[in-house]
Amino acid sequence: MEIKIVRNVLEANNKLAAEIRQRTANSKTLLVNLMSSPGSGKTTLLEKLIPMLQAKGYQIGVIEGDITTTMDAERLQPLNIPIVQINTEPFGGDCHLGAELVLPALDSLDLANLDFVFIENVGNLVCPAEFDTGADVNVVVLSVTEGGDKPLKYPLMFRVCHLALISKTDLLPYLDLNLDLLRQNMLQINPKLTIFPISAQRGDGLADLRDWLIKLKR
Amino acid sequence: MEIKIVRNVLEANNKLAAEIRQRTANSKTLLVNLMSSPGSGKTTLLEKLIPMLQAKGYQIGVIEGDITTTMDAERLQPLNIPIVQINTEPFGGDCHLGAELVLPALDSLDLANLDFVFIENVGNLVCPAEFDTGADVNVVVLSVTEGGDKPLKYPLMFRVCHLALISKTDLLPYLDLNLDLLRQNMLQINPKLTIFPISAQRGDGLADLRDWLIKLKR
Repeated sequence: MEIKIVRNVLEANNKLAAEIRQRTANSKTLLVNLMSSPGSGKTTLLEKLIPMLQAKGYQIGVIEGDITTTMDAERLQPLNIPIVQINTEPFGGDCHLGAELVLPALDSLDLANLDFVFIENVGNLVCPAEFDTGADVNVVVLSVTEGGDKPLKYPLMFRVCHLALISKTDLLPYLDLNLDLLRQNMLQINPKLTIFPISAQRGDGLADLRDWLIKLKR
Repeated sequence: MEIKIVRNVLEANNKLAAEIRQRTANSKTLLVNLMSSPGSGKTTLLEKLIPMLQAKGYQIGVIEGDITTTMDAERLQPLNIPIVQINTEPFGGDCHLGAELVLPALDSLDLANLDFVFIENVGNLVCPAEFDTGADVNVVVLSVTEGGDKPLKYPLMFRVCHLALISKTDLLPYLDLNLDLLRQNMLQINPKLTIFPISAQRGDGLADLRDWLIKLKR
């Protein structure tokens, strides 16, 4: 009985995710879902990456997912782009964004005039991986401070993602991290994963990331 | 109807948590539940703290919670202490430890001869806060690399904890973190929170932590 309930939730979610994909296909918008542990640098990445896409003439929107507060959305306000905040607290403090929350958020965006919409998911390396948001691209951000074993310990996240960003590489000189082993562990879980090391603060790797996203643009 | 189901799960969990508290009260064991995002340094903390408690004559046990792998338990094996691994993957890749998993783990430990049992919960700053494990003390570990806004964005975790450890303080010189603001944000969510900054790698703050735990010992 319990399994049936979970299945129904996932089936309902997948149906809404398909509806989202239909909508973004119609408007030729690339929907990119950023997932990670809390504090891996998703918001800082958006602060730096979005102006680089704007400089190439693209129009950007953001869906901010947080349990509570609008702190991340406020950090992005200087970019002068449409931002929709989803707070999951009224829905029981949900630990992830489901398609049922992303779909109404899309209603608030003028998709026909947006080339890229970034979803910043709730900071959590576990649950967001279980729910399809309808995104075209799933991206996991893992900070170098989190340790090289994380892909093996949280495999589903790395299995559902197309791209892994190894963030905060500016801190590498002060850490014991074996970057090659981290890459190997990521590829052991998902051999198709594209991997970019980045430092949003220094700008390292962001041009590669920008060009990779532009190539996927319909 | 859905709310009813969630309530039943939480009620069943709370009943088992009470049973756990009865057992550890009988054996005079202090059960300590460590929670945090992935990669905040829970395992490294246990590697350093446990020998310091052993040096004071205390007997220690550990319950390791992971979705999959026994990597953390293996890191603790040199300590030569009883360790019980709980992998939540067979239970649907659960993102937290519930009392229903901790209770059978206690069966594998000789509680009468253990002064402290540490639970290393699944790395997740959201869901573990929602489920009482039956622990006497809830501890959140937040790494300085995660940013000062996290208590405001993940308030439930800081609300249910007695102690907050600000970890990896050895990295502070390379970060933009305002440590006073982080403390203020923690106390804004939970004014009763005890806070220790620590560096497990350098040993900073660990003697304070050890003495704080010993004072709570029955």
